[in-house]
Amino acid sequence: MTGEELYTNILHKKSFLCVGLDTDIKKIPEHLLSEDDPVFAFNRAIVDATAKYCIAYKPNLAFYESGGIKGLQSLYRTIDYIREHYPDQFIIADAKRGDIGNTSMMYADCFFREMKADAVTVAPYMGRDSVTPFLGYEGGWVILLVLTSNKGADDFQYIRDEEGTPLFCNVLKKSLEWGGNADNMMYVVGATRADMLADIRRTVPDSFLLVPGIGAQGGSLAEVCKYGMNNRCGLIVNSSRAIIYADKSRDFANVASERAQQLQSEMALFLK
Amino acid sequence: MTGEELYTNILHKKSFLCVGLDTDIKKIPEHLLSEDDPVFAFNRAIVDATAKYCIAYKPNLAFYESGGIKGLQSLYRTIDYIREHYPDQFIIADAKRGDIGNTSMMYADCFFREMKADAVTVAPYMGRDSVTPFLGYEGGWVILLVLTSNKGADDFQYIRDEEGTPLFCNVLKKSLEWGGNADNMMYVVGATRADMLADIRRTVPDSFLLVPGIGAQGGSLAEVCKYGMNNRCGLIVNSSRAIIYADKSRDFANVASERAQQLQSEMALFLK
Repeated sequence: MTGEELYTNILHKKSFLCVGLDTDIKKIPEHLLSEDDPVFAFNRAIVDATAKYCIAYKPNLAFYESGGIKGLQSLYRTIDYIREHYPDQFIIADAKRGDIGNTSMMYADCFFREMKADAVTVAPYMGRDSVTPFLGYEGGWVILLVLTSNKGADDFQYIRDEEGTPLFCNVLKKSLEWGGNADNMMYVVGATRADMLADIRRTVPDSFLLVPGIGAQGGSLAEVCKYGMNNRCGLIVNSSRAIIYADKSRDFANVASERAQQLQSEMALFLK
Repeated sequence: MTGEELYTNILHKKSFLCVGLDTDIKKIPEHLLSEDDPVFAFNRAIVDATAKYCIAYKPNLAFYESGGIKGLQSLYRTIDYIREHYPDQFIIADAKRGDIGNTSMMYADCFFREMKADAVTVAPYMGRDSVTPFLGYEGGWVILLVLTSNKGADDFQYIRDEEGTPLFCNVLKKSLEWGGNADNMMYVVGATRADMLADIRRTVPDSFLLVPGIGAQGGSLAEVCKYGMNNRCGLIVNSSRAIIYADKSRDFANVASERAQQLQSEMALFLK
């Protein structure tokens, strides 16, 4: 999917919502546990309930890998289901990978070819050759971790270099030398740091930013839009727990749908 | 496995060799392709041929994930095989994971409980809460990326802070505050930077260091031992391609065995 197509979907749906499929078998409604594949059954219901209001899905790989082979099968089935029924959705494999060149190439194969995701999140610590192999895939996107919304983000991301530039800004700037562009690279910027968005936006005016941390993690949508929006929206805002675990009864999908619709309505106002 | 047990194995085998199972179906001997599970067949042969000379195996997850579900099954079978036939081997899931707290917990479940690995490599960019969940597992080890052997290591790992300390040293120092110890944390230090090992060894005198980059990547075993050894060896030196792809004929396992034995003999000299 190109950036232009993504923007078209955003305008069409009046939404830049990404639903995070962080599906934990311990947290899904009990009645699903009798299904053959409870995780897939949950995801399918969530996707059917929310697809109208979002433009992307972001399964976090850890939630599936923790279930071993069976967990991975649930993820593959989920992605196949989205691809078949909602082909306009942008699928982000939230994997936070990063390895040396030939190994990153294998990861690129995994996520783009085997899993058929549109995008994969990548950690920057190992530098350029851990990122560039992903950029060689036609239609595949890298979403580079820049500023995360967890507490430990303070440990390294804010360390200033000898010229006073924090590490996350160095990551952002350096990434511009790797041959990517606003049509195959995005950046993860946690919503809990909305004030930093303005700085980041100045460095990458045209790029999409993937923003987690809305909802359960306390970020404000208004602030994110104020500092982060650009002329083709430029934002994909993720919400996971606040949508998928909003209700644990048999009515969970309807409640998830309402929550997604609510966020979509708020987003529509900022898109005007 | 405790550090003491690992050291006992090292003394017993006169080896601190780790064989990297970076198994690429495109690179294995052709005659194996008719097997039901060629990747597992290759790994089993390599393991049988090298187990006498090494104390650890390190499958890199990317090589298995790139084969989708089938690839992961080959990995699980490989680990089960090692666990059953060579229970003294230390198994490192080279996954380079790193995510926020609740998600890292899922990864810990994946690697320690589902996959039954002893250790998992973890990337530091997201800070403490991406690492500490792994430390809660009895007998499970974190191997934190500090200084890697790829070209892109220069991009961020050497950035000096306002006091002149490079990022990799900040990662190392900060990690000492996370509640780990020399019995549940190790560090990845690329062999191509052997001169840096002395500095690192001063900061973590008691910890094991996992050293990739010997062989194909050009590092020297003598230098690694000179700067990195401590009083319980303190080194696990990895070799992947130089052993597993030393030969591509039907004789591949014998040649791999010879290569492993050769490295083991060199290591034995340094252990004296």
